[in-house]
Amino acid sequence: MAKNITPRKENYSQWYLDVIAAGQLADYAPVKGCMVIRPSGFAIWEAMQSRLDRMFKETGHVNASFPLLIPKHFMEREAEHVEGFSPECAVVTHGGGKELEEPLMIRPTSETVIGHMYSQWIQSYRDLPVLINQWCNVLRWEMRTRLFLRTSEFLWQEGHTAHETAEEAQEETLRMLEIYRVFQEEYLAIPVIKGIKSESEKFPGALSTYSVEAMMQDGKALQSGTSHNLGQNFAKAFEIDFLDRNNNQKYVWTTSWGASTRMIGGLIMTHSDDDGLILPPKIAPVQVAIVPIFNNDQERSETLEFADAIANRLKEKIDQLQIKIDSSDNLRPADKFFHWIQQGVPVRIEVGPRDVKKQSAMVARRDIREKNAVPVEQITQHVVDLLEKIQQNLFERALNYRKENTRTVSSYAEFKEIISNQGGFISAHWDGSKEVEAQIKQETKATIRCLPLEKNPEPGKCMVTGLPSAQRALFAIAY
Amino acid sequence: MAKNITPRKENYSQWYLDVIAAGQLADYAPVKGCMVIRPSGFAIWEAMQSRLDRMFKETGHVNASFPLLIPKHFMEREAEHVEGFSPECAVVTHGGGKELEEPLMIRPTSETVIGHMYSQWIQSYRDLPVLINQWCNVLRWEMRTRLFLRTSEFLWQEGHTAHETAEEAQEETLRMLEIYRVFQEEYLAIPVIKGIKSESEKFPGALSTYSVEAMMQDGKALQSGTSHNLGQNFAKAFEIDFLDRNNNQKYVWTTSWGASTRMIGGLIMTHSDDDGLILPPKIAPVQVAIVPIFNNDQERSETLEFADAIANRLKEKIDQLQIKIDSSDNLRPADKFFHWIQQGVPVRIEVGPRDVKKQSAMVARRDIREKNAVPVEQITQHVVDLLEKIQQNLFERALNYRKENTRTVSSYAEFKEIISNQGGFISAHWDGSKEVEAQIKQETKATIRCLPLEKNPEPGKCMVTGLPSAQRALFAIAY
Repeated sequence: MAKNITPRKENYSQWYLDVIAAGQLADYAPVKGCMVIRPSGFAIWEAMQSRLDRMFKETGHVNASFPLLIPKHFMEREAEHVEGFSPECAVVTHGGGKELEEPLMIRPTSETVIGHMYSQWIQSYRDLPVLINQWCNVLRWEMRTRLFLRTSEFLWQEGHTAHETAEEAQEETLRMLEIYRVFQEEYLAIPVIKGIKSESEKFPGALSTYSVEAMMQDGKALQSGTSHNLGQNFAKAFEIDFLDRNNNQKYVWTTSWGASTRMIGGLIMTHSDDDGLILPPKIAPVQVAIVPIFNNDQERSETLEFADAIANRLKEKIDQLQIKIDSSDNLRPADKFFHWIQQGVPVRIEVGPRDVKKQSAMVARRDIREKNAVPVEQITQHVVDLLEKIQQNLFERALNYRKENTRTVSSYAEFKEIISNQGGFISAHWDGSKEVEAQIKQETKATIRCLPLEKNPEPGKCMVTGLPSAQRALFAIAY
Repeated sequence: MAKNITPRKENYSQWYLDVIAAGQLADYAPVKGCMVIRPSGFAIWEAMQSRLDRMFKETGHVNASFPLLIPKHFMEREAEHVEGFSPECAVVTHGGGKELEEPLMIRPTSETVIGHMYSQWIQSYRDLPVLINQWCNVLRWEMRTRLFLRTSEFLWQEGHTAHETAEEAQEETLRMLEIYRVFQEEYLAIPVIKGIKSESEKFPGALSTYSVEAMMQDGKALQSGTSHNLGQNFAKAFEIDFLDRNNNQKYVWTTSWGASTRMIGGLIMTHSDDDGLILPPKIAPVQVAIVPIFNNDQERSETLEFADAIANRLKEKIDQLQIKIDSSDNLRPADKFFHWIQQGVPVRIEVGPRDVKKQSAMVARRDIREKNAVPVEQITQHVVDLLEKIQQNLFERALNYRKENTRTVSSYAEFKEIISNQGGFISAHWDGSKEVEAQIKQETKATIRCLPLEKNPEPGKCMVTGLPSAQRALFAIAY
């Protein structure tokens, strides 16, 4: 067992921080609540960005860049928005050595300034839809922070679209939610539940907010992608209007949707074990690490040459394979293995002098720590299969864990007992009132993560008040 | 001639802004001096990023992310650095609804905070070299701004490296300068001169600063990539030390190097004409636009089908070709052509009903406005050749322009006359003193752009004082 990592059972929070430290993924920055994403962590973000960006572009979106600083009065134009975000803002009061006439807020999100630009760009229905995304940093002052999951500054993408009709805006909102689901499940191997947020949990200024919710290994929920139907709220606040097909002046319908570096936290918490990071092959910056083992110069050159030959064989047949040969001299074999284990690399190939003679190699998988000697002529197919198996196994393991820790309850007493003893997700009826939602949160710390999108919701009675409920809500204690 | 663009001869500054507006590349943001990079402009930045990023990675660099906010006392630890940057900083004084104990600066550049992190990460020579880059936004308060060329907030990359020896740091500094040269010349088709900056023009805190300098179409110089050898200045200020191979505690040697969205301004000013933007094929987000011309539904489906067939033919043979078919219904053919001309697309293919019958298409090049009917079976080779020709022609045109507008002078009288009448670059001897440099700047507005890196510099006498000079300096009025 890894000496530098606290076991999950002992202290889950410390385990999480230890995995990050061991993988050299991130550090706290000298400014409170901010983080430095180190190269190993940032490579994961780059992999996420490139795959998500491709999905956005395939659905017709383009990227742009909007300013970091937002005039204070912009924030005030949408009443719910300013109420929600003002307390979290960092404020610039001085620039170029002088006090500013109007304070500037560092963007906590960009609906306001983008709304302002859209009002200038959009004149006619011919200018619609506008489908723009930006990758950037945002800042929300946080008192209690946790690397990746909650930091004052974080990196994200925020999509902002404008449409002719309410229907199109709703379609877009659900389209992007589905992209988040596909991305999380197919690339990150994280099973998620799509749903709509309750009124108290929705985005300040939105008509409705949808999210994808995942279960971490401690049974807590992580919201890791949200999609908002903003209706005409921001269109009215920023006068984004257009001449429609019948020559009438109308307000546009807008949406916004975002996912952030928080997903890296979700990735760590879903798959990793007491030895450290485990990455799914489809998102791993390094998918295969080849580790030559040698005791002298002769062995060094032999094993490195063999490692090269294996790498070339793999790269030739596996498209876009990310592979690294560990040619370092200053670590013992066990320390080298440990390095790649804690980097979460899915497949490790070890080659020593005896392997060179036998023309085979030891191939180890990270997810279940299985190790096999594989003849060199079979190695390509073996690695192809293994990468697929690992991806699938991680998803299924997480899905089973979620199933085992999701419970359906009908009484509030049962709900309270499960939340305090077992945690996990609880599916329960709720009467739809803010008051009951607040009471449950206060008494149990559990919140409504979402009302899952279901084809045939089953009606029932609120577990607290007995009033009618149209469908079960998903409750959990959340990050 | 384009009605929406002021001719260069009439008003070069206005021409520049008109080209940006016509190409929908950028807008001013509601915060003074900040800009919005619109999708057409941002696609150019994405193309620059992907190519530069690949070059950085091929030379062993990795990406990371450091925080936006820097504690004020960090800036003060390197004396020249704080003197240079403090007046340009935006200052955050409030966060989370409270006044902060210590003001935070929005990063104008990140040597300080990165130096702080390096001091924690680097312990031994085994940790060296550290070769990290980040793509991010920075902010330097500017009074006089110009889209892309000088804005308060801009996007850039900043590389920060730490080395065991002075020699390695110097090698790295020149390696990255060479990458900027190659990128500018091979991708942007902008000829540049590599050189070292004079003492008064170097980066605050650097031992020496190198840059690549290009000539714009008005004869002014644009610095569009700098590489700094920081010596041990930041290592001492932030205590970045390590145990060397002989077990002695030593300070590391650091470098930093950056290039920004300013390059988009340089690209526009180097190649574009009175009709608007011209992009070199190797950086153009769209390399080929196919424009079907039709008057009725029958013609529409015929020409679109033909356009598709041509696109598929091209994509099959030309790797990673960026191609767009303009299927819009609401513009006249002339307006469609104009749209693609002002987007700077290198090759335009027009297909009308008659072309479908003849199985040929009109192929137009953007750089010299030549148009040829090309049979469909020859079109792939024609386009391949054309893209190469355009790339080369743009570079040669710019190189010739620079040659024609670079003059060697020996007297200060001649210098003053040329600077005020013709502008351009002037190669002249200078005695190396700050005083003479300042006098020339004050009297002519020209500055020393760099001391070009030359194998056999020719010594001479300063044109102002007659004192000895080791080599000619390159003077120009600069952006």
